[in-house]
Amino acid sequence: MNKLYDIGLVGLSVMGRSLALNMADHGFRVAGYNRSPEVTDRVLREHPHENLSGFYSLEALVSALERPRKVFLMIQAGPAVDAVLEQLLPLLERGDVVMDGGNSYFEDTNRRAETLAEAGIHYFGVGVSGGEEGARRGPSVMPGGPREAYGAVRPILEAVAARAEDDKPCCAYIGPGGAGHYVKMVHNGIEYADMQLIAEAYLLLKYAGGFTNRELAETFAAWDRGELHSYLIGITADIFTRQDDLATGDLIDHILDSAGQKGTGRWTSIESLRQGVDVSMITAACSARVMSNHLERRARAGGRIAAVPVTGVDNKSAFAETVRQALYTGKIIAYAQGFSLLADASGRFGWGLNLGEIASIFRAGCIIQAAFLGDITAAYRADPALESLLLAPFFLDRVNERQEHLRRAAAAAVLGGIPAPALTNAAAYLDGFRARACGANLIQAQRDCFGAHTYERADRPGSFHYDWRKTP
Amino acid sequence: MNKLYDIGLVGLSVMGRSLALNMADHGFRVAGYNRSPEVTDRVLREHPHENLSGFYSLEALVSALERPRKVFLMIQAGPAVDAVLEQLLPLLERGDVVMDGGNSYFEDTNRRAETLAEAGIHYFGVGVSGGEEGARRGPSVMPGGPREAYGAVRPILEAVAARAEDDKPCCAYIGPGGAGHYVKMVHNGIEYADMQLIAEAYLLLKYAGGFTNRELAETFAAWDRGELHSYLIGITADIFTRQDDLATGDLIDHILDSAGQKGTGRWTSIESLRQGVDVSMITAACSARVMSNHLERRARAGGRIAAVPVTGVDNKSAFAETVRQALYTGKIIAYAQGFSLLADASGRFGWGLNLGEIASIFRAGCIIQAAFLGDITAAYRADPALESLLLAPFFLDRVNERQEHLRRAAAAAVLGGIPAPALTNAAAYLDGFRARACGANLIQAQRDCFGAHTYERADRPGSFHYDWRKTP
Repeated sequence: MNKLYDIGLVGLSVMGRSLALNMADHGFRVAGYNRSPEVTDRVLREHPHENLSGFYSLEALVSALERPRKVFLMIQAGPAVDAVLEQLLPLLERGDVVMDGGNSYFEDTNRRAETLAEAGIHYFGVGVSGGEEGARRGPSVMPGGPREAYGAVRPILEAVAARAEDDKPCCAYIGPGGAGHYVKMVHNGIEYADMQLIAEAYLLLKYAGGFTNRELAETFAAWDRGELHSYLIGITADIFTRQDDLATGDLIDHILDSAGQKGTGRWTSIESLRQGVDVSMITAACSARVMSNHLERRARAGGRIAAVPVTGVDNKSAFAETVRQALYTGKIIAYAQGFSLLADASGRFGWGLNLGEIASIFRAGCIIQAAFLGDITAAYRADPALESLLLAPFFLDRVNERQEHLRRAAAAAVLGGIPAPALTNAAAYLDGFRARACGANLIQAQRDCFGAHTYERADRPGSFHYDWRKTP
Repeated sequence: MNKLYDIGLVGLSVMGRSLALNMADHGFRVAGYNRSPEVTDRVLREHPHENLSGFYSLEALVSALERPRKVFLMIQAGPAVDAVLEQLLPLLERGDVVMDGGNSYFEDTNRRAETLAEAGIHYFGVGVSGGEEGARRGPSVMPGGPREAYGAVRPILEAVAARAEDDKPCCAYIGPGGAGHYVKMVHNGIEYADMQLIAEAYLLLKYAGGFTNRELAETFAAWDRGELHSYLIGITADIFTRQDDLATGDLIDHILDSAGQKGTGRWTSIESLRQGVDVSMITAACSARVMSNHLERRARAGGRIAAVPVTGVDNKSAFAETVRQALYTGKIIAYAQGFSLLADASGRFGWGLNLGEIASIFRAGCIIQAAFLGDITAAYRADPALESLLLAPFFLDRVNERQEHLRRAAAAAVLGGIPAPALTNAAAYLDGFRARACGANLIQAQRDCFGAHTYERADRPGSFHYDWRKTP
């Protein structure tokens, strides 16, 4: 019997432990290590598994691994990764593979990949989505790194990944360098927008539509049976059924109305601004969480800025249908924004991303898993050079059928004093995207007038400057 | 007669030359230098001035300056500034002062200030706004650097600055390090939002209201006589009166509908995301310019995404009044966002910014100069710890009186297929700012459900995790 291990897993807190057990379940012999030996001991005690052993130094871990050695890091993104890499580097040899499964910033991954490549070590930034449950039972996996070394880690990564309906693993080689972490970052940005859209649908149904929690649960459950079928809509329906465990009433009404964030959504927004790609719904979703945190300011302002009279709705089910179609249309636009950012990055960084395949590995395992992703894959398979999801026939038809509902829901929010920045930015993006006129001619005239920035013309090529000093 | 010069000006293209002549007009003896001697020669030939002389090496320039020497850089932001500083450093001595009047990134200015401080040289990042005309006749000036050295440069900077109505110079010490460049950056971000609001008003009046260019010119001219009185509204009224000089018809209709940008607006957005402050209108304005650049995609999408039927307006003057009030309300919110970002930076970086004084130096000279700025100054004078302009009585009253118009104009855009992201983000910000409910409780429930991120409660302190696995 081979006494060596197939893979070393560094970092055994929730995500690392879950992934280690997932690998062990699939027959891989896993050597686990955690900086704190107590954590390693607890994992072995509470989650004993014949394929999982504990090690108490990186030296011992590395020397127990089959060559080429495969080490998977599941530790806090940031300086901790650099620290562990510094310790690992002298223990490894040419041809070994290191994977970082955390939410590292893609430029850090680019940098680390270059450093390790100099020592002949293959470095993969591996996006892993799906939370604890995903890591344990099958996440969506986005490995980026040297393609020539992918074969060495592919069997393990594909084995632990979720399986989509067609039984294909939700794991695919993404591209070189930080491509995998970049895609994971944008996945998280899309997740922010998706969650914000659902929150806005909730506000509209509750505060404009007068829906009770029971009606909300039923409405989201019904939506989950149709084209909106997704993990997030499913858990939302479930959330509204939950009774509080510390006080009487529904759980949702006891949770503080202030949302946290861990940074990857914000990174997506920052990167989009650097690249010059509009992902307004993702940015709006990040900012909405920030705004939600100012509870005292909200209370003060709520008492001083006049409330908007609520008019109510005549027909609850018709209103819910408008909100549902608005949510679906908004979702198309959010994904169009996110995938436009991926397309731009693919060209800009020379990654050659396969957007259809990326959508297909989001079909299961991850937070944004949805029937919808299959439609995105189909759109990119039909036209790999697709300029925007909004121009794919499937989505174009649906936008044309539903845009009126998006407009009505967004206008209802604006007129009703309900903050719905994702829905309103969806409408503005759609209109900017197809705009015959967007007022930029006036902005150019102003810029030429105050700064001699010149302007282009609609009727001939070239740059022009108008003599604004002459009398009109 | 003293043969030495009061100040050296490095970089004599449009902005540098204009500022040099402005200084010379005020009796300062200016030594000018440009990397290309032809530029220096042309300036001396075309703009002869008894107080302006040309120099052809940095050595000659520096040795002609009165001690402590004052050198003002007006060169392209970025590596060129570092290159010139490297050349200057050995020529200078302790106590000399270098000012950078370009649009440098504030963190670069922080870094340069530290480097020069080690050599005992005082470094100022000086925001200069107002374009060519401002630089020549009186810009708004935002100097940031070591306070103890400000006295040495203050007389020159105040002399060249614009004068507000009360004859006060539009120049004030901003704070240490990169504070001056930071404030200039945010000024530019606000300028982007202001221009985008005006562009949206134009679109609404033209495409929903059916206004002709002549009517637009009259409308903006009338607005410029009221509370919206500002440089930008004034030039907008003028723009609509201009005949084209290359073809028949109005200039505005021949300018390509695609807006350029030079980066400071985008920097403001990126910085706001890093700080966690919502400046959605500035971000929307940057993104709207980006979207405008996709002319071919817009044309393709315009032919395939169904047009929204235009309903028209019954009463043009009532509609114009709604748009005017929406623009004014949107402007309050844009400035509230920008000043919130300044307030956050002030605390975060320990700059001790005087926001009222900053507003007061925007009153003249710069692109966003407006009557409105005096009201902002008054608001901060009345309450230096003001949490947001939206909570200042003057602006609060106006928002309460006018928010209905903002909502109506934004909803008209959303329903009419007109891209108006600044107006719609203004409404969403106002509603997020005063929100009693913003749906973040649902987002926290989702996060706790899929990632065990825990949640806080409205009824008691602490962090809680719900057992989602139990049967509801």
